[in-house]
Amino acid sequence: MLFHHHGYVSTDPRIQPAAGVGVDRSPDLPEVIDVLVVGSGPAGMTATAQLASFPDVMTCLVDRRPQRLEIGQADGIQARSVETFQAFGFAEEITAEAYDLTEMNFWKPDPQNPEHIVRTARTVDDPAGVSEFPHLIVNQARVLDYFARFAKNAPSRTEPYWGWEFVRLEVGEGEHPVAVTLKRTGESAEAGVGPGEERVVRAKYVLGADGAHSRVRRDIGAQHVGAVSYHAWGVMDVLAETDFPDIRTKCATPLTEIIRQANEIVSPYSIDVKDVAWWSVYEVGHRVTDRFDDVPVEEAGQRSPRVFIAGDACHTHSAKAGQGMNVSIQDAFNLGWKLGQVLSGVAPEKLLATYTAERQQIAQDLIDFDREWSSMMAAKPEELESETALEDFYVKTAEFPAGFMTEYPVSLLRGEAVHQDLATGFPLGKRFKAHPVKRVCDTNPKYLGHQHVADGRWRIYAFADSAVSSAPDSALRAWAEQMDSAGSPVRRFTPEGQDLDALFDLHVVYQQPHEEVELMQTPSIFRPQVGPFRISNLNKVWGVDPGNDIFEARGLSRDGVVVLVRPDQYVAHVLPLTATAELSDFLSRIYAS
Amino acid sequence: MLFHHHGYVSTDPRIQPAAGVGVDRSPDLPEVIDVLVVGSGPAGMTATAQLASFPDVMTCLVDRRPQRLEIGQADGIQARSVETFQAFGFAEEITAEAYDLTEMNFWKPDPQNPEHIVRTARTVDDPAGVSEFPHLIVNQARVLDYFARFAKNAPSRTEPYWGWEFVRLEVGEGEHPVAVTLKRTGESAEAGVGPGEERVVRAKYVLGADGAHSRVRRDIGAQHVGAVSYHAWGVMDVLAETDFPDIRTKCATPLTEIIRQANEIVSPYSIDVKDVAWWSVYEVGHRVTDRFDDVPVEEAGQRSPRVFIAGDACHTHSAKAGQGMNVSIQDAFNLGWKLGQVLSGVAPEKLLATYTAERQQIAQDLIDFDREWSSMMAAKPEELESETALEDFYVKTAEFPAGFMTEYPVSLLRGEAVHQDLATGFPLGKRFKAHPVKRVCDTNPKYLGHQHVADGRWRIYAFADSAVSSAPDSALRAWAEQMDSAGSPVRRFTPEGQDLDALFDLHVVYQQPHEEVELMQTPSIFRPQVGPFRISNLNKVWGVDPGNDIFEARGLSRDGVVVLVRPDQYVAHVLPLTATAELSDFLSRIYAS
Repeated sequence: MLFHHHGYVSTDPRIQPAAGVGVDRSPDLPEVIDVLVVGSGPAGMTATAQLASFPDVMTCLVDRRPQRLEIGQADGIQARSVETFQAFGFAEEITAEAYDLTEMNFWKPDPQNPEHIVRTARTVDDPAGVSEFPHLIVNQARVLDYFARFAKNAPSRTEPYWGWEFVRLEVGEGEHPVAVTLKRTGESAEAGVGPGEERVVRAKYVLGADGAHSRVRRDIGAQHVGAVSYHAWGVMDVLAETDFPDIRTKCATPLTEIIRQANEIVSPYSIDVKDVAWWSVYEVGHRVTDRFDDVPVEEAGQRSPRVFIAGDACHTHSAKAGQGMNVSIQDAFNLGWKLGQVLSGVAPEKLLATYTAERQQIAQDLIDFDREWSSMMAAKPEELESETALEDFYVKTAEFPAGFMTEYPVSLLRGEAVHQDLATGFPLGKRFKAHPVKRVCDTNPKYLGHQHVADGRWRIYAFADSAVSSAPDSALRAWAEQMDSAGSPVRRFTPEGQDLDALFDLHVVYQQPHEEVELMQTPSIFRPQVGPFRISNLNKVWGVDPGNDIFEARGLSRDGVVVLVRPDQYVAHVLPLTATAELSDFLSRIYAS
Repeated sequence: MLFHHHGYVSTDPRIQPAAGVGVDRSPDLPEVIDVLVVGSGPAGMTATAQLASFPDVMTCLVDRRPQRLEIGQADGIQARSVETFQAFGFAEEITAEAYDLTEMNFWKPDPQNPEHIVRTARTVDDPAGVSEFPHLIVNQARVLDYFARFAKNAPSRTEPYWGWEFVRLEVGEGEHPVAVTLKRTGESAEAGVGPGEERVVRAKYVLGADGAHSRVRRDIGAQHVGAVSYHAWGVMDVLAETDFPDIRTKCATPLTEIIRQANEIVSPYSIDVKDVAWWSVYEVGHRVTDRFDDVPVEEAGQRSPRVFIAGDACHTHSAKAGQGMNVSIQDAFNLGWKLGQVLSGVAPEKLLATYTAERQQIAQDLIDFDREWSSMMAAKPEELESETALEDFYVKTAEFPAGFMTEYPVSLLRGEAVHQDLATGFPLGKRFKAHPVKRVCDTNPKYLGHQHVADGRWRIYAFADSAVSSAPDSALRAWAEQMDSAGSPVRRFTPEGQDLDALFDLHVVYQQPHEEVELMQTPSIFRPQVGPFRISNLNKVWGVDPGNDIFEARGLSRDGVVVLVRPDQYVAHVLPLTATAELSDFLSRIYAS
């Protein structure tokens, strides 16, 4: 965590000082707000957490439930989600209470005795090391708890308003154009409103994270396209005693078996259910919404959206690949910083149109993937191409469900791949893959990327040319001087009166080991004086780990390269150190009003 | 963490169900209790946390301060302490908010210009990998917070009673023989007692963790032996702006320089102090108490102790090696489980005499080490044996301050080293060094040793002979059958009505990788049915990690070996699989009444 730049802290550093709307925030739901989030599932809670980082944005999360989710309805946590948890400061804690999915085992009917199943394959999870984080199993309720804690401890002190059901919304005019009618649920009159009473909240923006039967989606007229599969899914969380040896391991068993009782599936083994925590049987649809905001497709680009939808409201599919919660979190991570920056007055509204443009395609890809996987799982063994078709497909496509195939196309937020060869290991449009480096100030080994917390800031990584830090002239030094000059995007777009790293957090990585970097001779833009005491932040100067050189591992040019990373951790641009004008142009297109 | 063996948990699994005295515990300080802990520093808080795990033991911690410590008075956390934090469930969290000490740098007067200092050496921390945990810098207040949280979330729901000052104690007769007079501090009347009013609490046992000027020590007549060094120490926690490049790295600078102002020390660099959080100047004494309990040395073994002291009450020394908090934590970890087991009726009182026997020598070693290190630090460069004497001593002795030179001698709690050759990497009397293995049930890579949480239980690791798990006859199977038989120590000493693993937690490690271990064919004593649903605990069966074989790394006999580990993680015995009678004898000496 950051050192005590804003004053000595003896309490939990995860609890940030209250600021902006978080100072003296009332526990009652206000009538006029910035963002109303409907639904406290993964999408709604993640968006709320991200927005809570913006001190001046009044975000209100409502849910018809009377309190936190008690029984989780999902538990597969893909590595990309754990990366996201790291950004929200709780990866270590949730990992400690989860268990890792390190293998997927395949069980099939025994050819000698089709009434019995046998283990036919073990596949290792993430053999390629696509992430430094594990694939976890942990109750969805806990994921929501941690996001809720982050929101509560964030400067804006944001907590859910329980017991409010969404009824309808209308988009009108004015500063707070969205009128949302909510109905009080529950039995007791709280907040001065009795059960069943309605109330209208006026918001600048609304996010519908209200699930597969989303009323927000209905009210913005978005089409939920696709079909129901007519496959019945049965899921349950139980405490059981069994002699089935893989009861604690992720397994695939054919659907033709699942339609029997669980005990018949695992014959010759047996399962003795001792306690049922939760169960459900449901029909799986494969559906995706045509757009994720209230701007009709034919009007895209002509007006700014005011209402958004995310998560199950946009995409429904099977539970088979453990995708729902994970993709929903990424929907919200994508939207959160954009809304936060626009509402903080840092970015113009045009940023908001990129949400549907980026996420709708991801949802479509997800549905396509899930349809293929589900139909393979539903097939009889003899219908598959080969005996190992199922496990082959699983291994071949593993990067997709793990959450790492997202690759945003060229857009306002992603540059052309003209200089990709300077940083082949940081593909444009994909998430910035962290890598070990050594911090110079305290000699600590860290992952470059783990400092990229969910604070709504961009990261600009300047990978130096081969000159040492003390060299009076170098491409790195020239780049840094440009960035420190009056017309630079850093100086132009950072809001006045804020720390120089408030919008763009600049880091430098030298090609030398940390012992050879002279901290106090590095360009001062990498050591900005911040906080009330104007103390230099020394955490932004890095040397390589000689045993695992980031320049080698990520294919970085020895002439240096600049990697620009969005607040939600996706690579926006890769440029040579000399291309300061291009960097400035790219950021001007986003931030110049 | 353990799976949901005791029922499905959707909330924070760190919050254990209340039990015993934790059910409906009153917030008022009771008048008759089991253990009174005086002082909420590292020793008092750790002992309280450990005792809180015992549901039926009423432990009360009092401190004269009105609330939690706000400004830490220490911050060096040795790796052995982080291991201990892991046992108390907060290593990941505290590490995330700390910074690692990965190097120690040495600065000395520049021979060319003695007014200036120059960096003369960098030494890497723990190059030998003595622990898998880092050496941290984190505020003592946070360490106490985490132990306090553990105690509050433990079954007995133990929270400090603030605002009570220890006045005096007397040891008398009866079931609660220690009468302790406390005085109410503060300004308001709380708990029905006005400021300055006294109250007598009767306890079975008292722990004085009340610092260097301990009144508990005074009342038991223990001698605090040693001398004041007449060296003045100045320490401060400040926020500063500086051009001294190692401001964030652990450094040694000669004391001859420290007696000047900090700025003169770092000349030609400068330090501009922006904010002072805490400072102190004090005289260092090197003192150790002759005994850690109320039994005079000449009466040792003739009666059981009723009063104990720990931490600074027993040993005072310089802050130079970052030892005070760390050794205090180990004092308390040593005593906590012993008191807990005796008060729970599991172990006889004789266990308690081992506390002073084991810890007094550790304190003596500490004082000796610190005296040597302090005098080297105080010396002028020309007085030292060689130019690199300081850094050489630091590197050579690093295992001592890191907390790993503790090696308890043969005693009631440690067997003779007759079979040490069967497990050369688990030295008798030293702490069990964790090592990677693979858990069979869920294929998870874990450190064997990290399951050894601070729950007051012994661990018995049965390292199997070379036979596979399904072999009908093997040395391992014969050993397990003995342990499962009516006369075994497991059956004899586990309290009636409790789970079979309530006192001895048995694990088996096979020589094969986890895929080759047939979980359901392992001896059933390694899969005990526990909790209200009698569900098999599958977490105790392990395979090796083929890339880092524990049998190779720890020098384990291929004929198998049993390693018995105390609740505070020290190796108590190493025995062949055939030596079930010796194991039984050893445990009978401790537990048979």
